[in-house]
Amino acid sequence: MDAIIVSIGNELTLGQTVDTNSAWLSQQLAAIGGRVRMQATVADELEPIRDLLDRAARAADVVLVSGGIGPTAADLPRHALAAAMGVDLVLHPPSIERIREFFTRRGRVMPEANTVQAMFPAGAAPIENTCGTAPGIRAKLHRADVFVMPGVPREMKEMFTRDVLPALSERSGDAVLLAKTINTYGAGESDVGERIRDLMQRGRNPTVGTTAQQTIIGVRIHAFGPTRDEARRLLDADAAEIRRRLGDLVFGEDDETLAHAVAKRLFETKRTVATAESCTGGLIAKSLTDIPGSSEYFLNGFVTYSNESKTRLIEVPAELILRHGAVSAPVAAAMAGNARRISKSDYAISATGIAGPGGGSPAKPVGLVFFGLSCAEGCDVQERRFGSDMTREEIRDRACKFALNLLRLKLLETAAR
Amino acid sequence: MDAIIVSIGNELTLGQTVDTNSAWLSQQLAAIGGRVRMQATVADELEPIRDLLDRAARAADVVLVSGGIGPTAADLPRHALAAAMGVDLVLHPPSIERIREFFTRRGRVMPEANTVQAMFPAGAAPIENTCGTAPGIRAKLHRADVFVMPGVPREMKEMFTRDVLPALSERSGDAVLLAKTINTYGAGESDVGERIRDLMQRGRNPTVGTTAQQTIIGVRIHAFGPTRDEARRLLDADAAEIRRRLGDLVFGEDDETLAHAVAKRLFETKRTVATAESCTGGLIAKSLTDIPGSSEYFLNGFVTYSNESKTRLIEVPAELILRHGAVSAPVAAAMAGNARRISKSDYAISATGIAGPGGGSPAKPVGLVFFGLSCAEGCDVQERRFGSDMTREEIRDRACKFALNLLRLKLLETAAR
Repeated sequence: MDAIIVSIGNELTLGQTVDTNSAWLSQQLAAIGGRVRMQATVADELEPIRDLLDRAARAADVVLVSGGIGPTAADLPRHALAAAMGVDLVLHPPSIERIREFFTRRGRVMPEANTVQAMFPAGAAPIENTCGTAPGIRAKLHRADVFVMPGVPREMKEMFTRDVLPALSERSGDAVLLAKTINTYGAGESDVGERIRDLMQRGRNPTVGTTAQQTIIGVRIHAFGPTRDEARRLLDADAAEIRRRLGDLVFGEDDETLAHAVAKRLFETKRTVATAESCTGGLIAKSLTDIPGSSEYFLNGFVTYSNESKTRLIEVPAELILRHGAVSAPVAAAMAGNARRISKSDYAISATGIAGPGGGSPAKPVGLVFFGLSCAEGCDVQERRFGSDMTREEIRDRACKFALNLLRLKLLETAAR
Repeated sequence: MDAIIVSIGNELTLGQTVDTNSAWLSQQLAAIGGRVRMQATVADELEPIRDLLDRAARAADVVLVSGGIGPTAADLPRHALAAAMGVDLVLHPPSIERIREFFTRRGRVMPEANTVQAMFPAGAAPIENTCGTAPGIRAKLHRADVFVMPGVPREMKEMFTRDVLPALSERSGDAVLLAKTINTYGAGESDVGERIRDLMQRGRNPTVGTTAQQTIIGVRIHAFGPTRDEARRLLDADAAEIRRRLGDLVFGEDDETLAHAVAKRLFETKRTVATAESCTGGLIAKSLTDIPGSSEYFLNGFVTYSNESKTRLIEVPAELILRHGAVSAPVAAAMAGNARRISKSDYAISATGIAGPGGGSPAKPVGLVFFGLSCAEGCDVQERRFGSDMTREEIRDRACKFALNLLRLKLLETAAR
């Protein structure tokens, strides 16, 4: 099953919104063995949308469209699809009733502008929208099944999962493509690539490649097979080999984050953690609590941004800050050690640094961060210089990952003993 | 200047990575009056890339390509471009020297695989990469100037800003398109649309439309003009009118966040804030410290995730939690009030709720969050039920925005007095 994903919206072609729908839809298609030939995004203009739908429906079996059917004026995919099909829009009375009910349930009157949402190209069918007003559209165009969904991610996902996916699953019975990513932290893309060079040869099945995203190097494996079982067997064999070669660099698979890896170990060992953050400003605590059930292992966090709060809340001696500066190894150690003691946690991690863009000096440039990791056996301190050409956001992100990885390695080390 | 943006990578068509490059490049093009006709993404396969480049270079003046020229095996855009141009790849000796130096500076030997990065289609020119190894490629194909850049966002941005943008600016001398988004919080997309319906009529210049992203409703204005001044005048007039109609819903423009709005007011009034978070787990503190210079107004934050930590760190009476539950109005009030007192800040905001997916009950469902806002005049408490169909991430995001907006409105109210 070949698919083309079409996203529509001026906010996309003007770059004001990052399109996350295409990635999500692509994942869903890959999971059922579909192959995305292209993701294409065009503005809210009738002709380009019509042309794109026309071309896509000749080149692919399935065309998934998102965007442009919201409650505001520009409702072009509907018109473009009708034009490409060579038919008129006709009113679908049950849909107008459903939209009216949606507003009534919220104690409001349906704005007149919403009427167009109940109009469909002749021969097309509505797809129910259970969490918004605009129904989707299902139509046949050239060789393709075309599905038009709302652009709002939550509405699109709901509609896709509920109605589009079952329709697609019926179609797919061809070769199965399974994909997996092995996530690593701690080495560069070239280094990771060198260790698995032979697996990355072109023409091989599975195909293996690397991706770099904010210091996370992912090793992607795509296995094709005549059956799901055969594809799975190929995929698993490569995954095992890659894990063996990359060792401790590997922290998880697919959408598992460093926080997941840490959470898993803490869950398993029933240990707890606390945080004391300065430059990361709560990001480490936020990451640790991204995981459902994190109350099992995360006790509390301190965001001690001002010097005074470091002293008042986690008892870092004022004279220590005065002597070494807030961005220093002794302060990082005191933050972690005291946070652990006050929180009565098994582990505590701290970060103090200069996230920039201001506040740097030749001795302590932007990007310098000290980390502390306190546990029963003592406290490790690490110094790290993230590039001073990085943005504040990048430095904070890198620092958070580095801190989580320190804890991950410590937990691995403890498990190995 | 018509542009097509091409992104390349299996990780994109498989949906494992969200493409942020296209949005960023589109913004840059819009800023110099360029018009993005299409963003297209294809996999790491020679033929589809060649076809796409060929078609794009016939349809647009500029083709911006990112991805696929990293240090690992699949280096297809290079080969595809040469094929589309009908030429061979030739080695560019200065580039191989530069790549070797990049490794030498890091105390490493250049892996053999990197050699291909110094090969270019005959007639094409390299573009220096100051923060990675792979140089970009500049070439002429059909009517278009084609620029191939790395996929790693930081390297791509650096290369675009340094070398590609100046080359593009020279070209553009046509009609200028200026864009602006007015950001609002607190009303739905339909409501916002109703208030500015007349400005959203099709065919009008500027064009006005709305976008919804995670409860932030943006009003996009695009003004075309023969000159930058004329486009600016049209843009500013619409922006002023929209601000007037939407009043307090408006918190900023373009990439300004609720945290920016809060930060600005706190800066201006030299007030300080502290946080006490449960379900948001540090996200509010993180958001407040996203802003450079936030140490001026952000003193410290408490992430009191466990009940015990609420009592130990911010003195919420254990019997209060026992009587009302940790997710309750009295606990939210105590968290904010005590955090303000302990932190000696002017304001403190608190959030305690059920982020899910577990932990809900009929009386206190997933999505229920209580907020406290403490200041010298007293403490406001608000209860909010975010949809129980939302993900943990969505609920935390919505709760954070709601908390920041509470503080924003309080600061506006104080300023008005």
